[in-house]
Amino acid sequence: MQGFPGSLQPPYYAVIFTSLRTEGDDGYAAMADEMMRLAQEQPGFLGAESVRGADGLGITVSYWASEEAIANWRNHARHRLAQRLGQKQWYERYSVRVCRVERAYEFERTNDPQGDGTRS
Amino acid sequence: MQGFPGSLQPPYYAVIFTSLRTEGDDGYAAMADEMMRLAQEQPGFLGAESVRGADGLGITVSYWASEEAIANWRNHARHRLAQRLGQKQWYERYSVRVCRVERAYEFERTNDPQGDGTRS
Repeated sequence: MQGFPGSLQPPYYAVIFTSLRTEGDDGYAAMADEMMRLAQEQPGFLGAESVRGADGLGITVSYWASEEAIANWRNHARHRLAQRLGQKQWYERYSVRVCRVERAYEFERTNDPQGDGTRS
Repeated sequence: MQGFPGSLQPPYYAVIFTSLRTEGDDGYAAMADEMMRLAQEQPGFLGAESVRGADGLGITVSYWASEEAIANWRNHARHRLAQRLGQKQWYERYSVRVCRVERAYEFERTNDPQGDGTRS
């Protein structure tokens, strides 16, 4: 599981990557792991969360400090190779959306005697 | 599978809902279905995509024409009940991020003789 990058202070940026995988691995899992590690080393990377369902649909959201950081990552040589291979063999379809996060809020369950989910 | 709401023209708005489920259903699946149907009836709803992994982590992104549409949906009576029940029993944790989508691009595999993923 990869999720909940922690409390980030808006405004910041999100890249929503929605994808439908082709069948078979063909090196996908190793590259996906590498990209997640590599992204974490990039300036301006704030966190990421990623889920893939049994039907092949996946959503990965990465968070960034600026649009410049997103552009730098998009143009990173190793990431560009991954993008090319993704179009060639790993994805049936995908969409990329670059967003500015305007506001955010969170809930986390605590051991609350009232059982009403509020924090004390 | 619920994804790829089609080509939307930025700017528009996205709500990224990341959640970790508690164990057991307790009426969750029925309410989730109802909320997805109900959202689709709301003014300004543009589409949604949703994935939940085997480990309980889920990401649902809904797309909206305006922040006002998002606020109206957030305050919808039946949706507010779902939010309360979510905090009471269905979610260990969640985050909600309201974003403005600045730009977007898509890839879709075609039967391309070159096998290079480009569209003709």
